[in-house]
Parts: sequence; structure tokens; C-alpha cells
Amino acid sequence: MLNNVLDPELDLDRVFHALADPGRRRMLVRLSQGPTSVSELGKPLAISLAAVLQHVQILEASGLVQSRKLGRTRTCSLNAETLRSAERWISERRTLVERQLDRLGEYLANTADQPGSGHTGPAGPHAPA
Amino acid sequence: MLNNVLDPELDLDRVFHALADPGRRRMLVRLSQGPTSVSELGKPLAISLAAVLQHVQILEASGLVQSRKLGRTRTCSLNAETLRSAERWISERRTLVERQLDRLGEYLANTADQPGSGHTGPAGPHAPA
Repeated sequence: MLNNVLDPELDLDRVFHALADPGRRRMLVRLSQGPTSVSELGKPLAISLAAVLQHVQILEASGLVQSRKLGRTRTCSLNAETLRSAERWISERRTLVERQLDRLGEYLANTADQPGSGHTGPAGPHAPA
Repeated sequence: MLNNVLDPELDLDRVFHALADPGRRRMLVRLSQGPTSVSELGKPLAISLAAVLQHVQILEASGLVQSRKLGRTRTCSLNAETLRSAERWISERRTLVERQLDRLGEYLANTADQPGSGHTGPAGPHAPA
């Protein structure tokens, strides 16, 4: 996480870049069910082992995935902390926009309640005859 | 949202790709404070208007941003719905991993409590003589 403190942009660049590929997202979906080997990760993708390894490297560099070599097998697992960082960045922006929309809604509702706004119902000045 | 139903991968590719650039994330931060013009969006980035427009196009294609031309000014705003889709994809994976970690924690705690686990102290079968 030191990297995150020194250069917060760099990490999110890598995380979102890693997430932008459908093959890598499929790997993450698989890993969300539990740790697995690199070769298992590649099976549903029908790509070369070299291509699988390249995807895994991008996922590891982003911090979304970590791997450990036990004997001849490299086992990958998902890093919940990195997922949470990316999720938080998006949710902070989303919350701000939603709050603005709420305020706009309140403003419009208040405006509609005021006399002369044209939205006051049959008693208002624009009521149908 | 039709696009999302027909090809869910395509949209997330674009959304995460759009999020993977620090300049575009800065634009999104600005837009999370409220709608603004394209030229205002570009000001803090110190890049050409052509480059700003290219970023805005990528943001619009991803569905993260929508824009409207009023007179000679194009005003951009953030789309909370697209942010929510991306957030949901990440949070679903994150929740699954956290649940596994919880279960693993429970399993280890239970194992440590059981006799014969080697963690039961001197009374267990593997107690040192």
C-alpha cells in the first residue's frame, strides 16, 4: 500500500486498466470463488499459456491478484483490499452526484409548491377552465 | 441500457478503460461537483482542446458522462447509473472474497478449538510427553 500513498494515481490507473479486459474480468470472477492455479484460470479463455501469464502479470501488477508458487504450481488469489479501493473511488463520485440530484429534486419540489409556479394544481393561475 | 443487456462485457470494457486514465478521472472528480462545460473540464489538465475533446468522447462512449449543447457551449454531467454498474461489478467480487475469508477464519477458529488439533494444550493427544 506504500505505492498507493506515494502515487495514488498510478495504482488506480493499473487497477482500472486491469479491469478493462473481459478475459481478465473472467479470471477475477473465477478467483472470487476461491484461489486457483494459473493453468485453471486460463482454461475457459482458450488462449495460450503465455497470454494467460501476461494477463496474470497485469492483474498482479495492479494489486488485484496475488500469487504464490508451491512446488510446480502457482496459485492465484484475489485481493479484497484493492477491489475495495477501486470501489471506494467510484462510490465517492457516485454519492456526490446522487446528492446533487436529490438537492435538485428538492429544489424543484419546493419551487412547484410556491404560488405562481404554475404547478399548484386547479387553484393555480394556469388551472384548466 | 439496451447495450448493457446485449453485450454486458463491452460496456464494462469501456467504463473501466475510461476510468484508467488520471486525466479522465480528474474530469470525473470535477463533474462529481456538478455539470460543467468542456472547456472548464480541460482547464486543470493543461492539454489541448482537441485532447480534452478526445477524453470527453471516451467518457461519453463509456456512458460515464453525458453532454448537451446549449447555444455554443457543450455542458457535461456525470451519469450516476453507469458509476453504479461499475461499482456493483467490483463489490460483488469483493463481497464473495470477503465471505471466503470469513469462512476460512471460522474454520481455523473451529479447528483450533477441537481436540486433536494440536492447539488444545497439554491435554490433547499430541501433547508433548
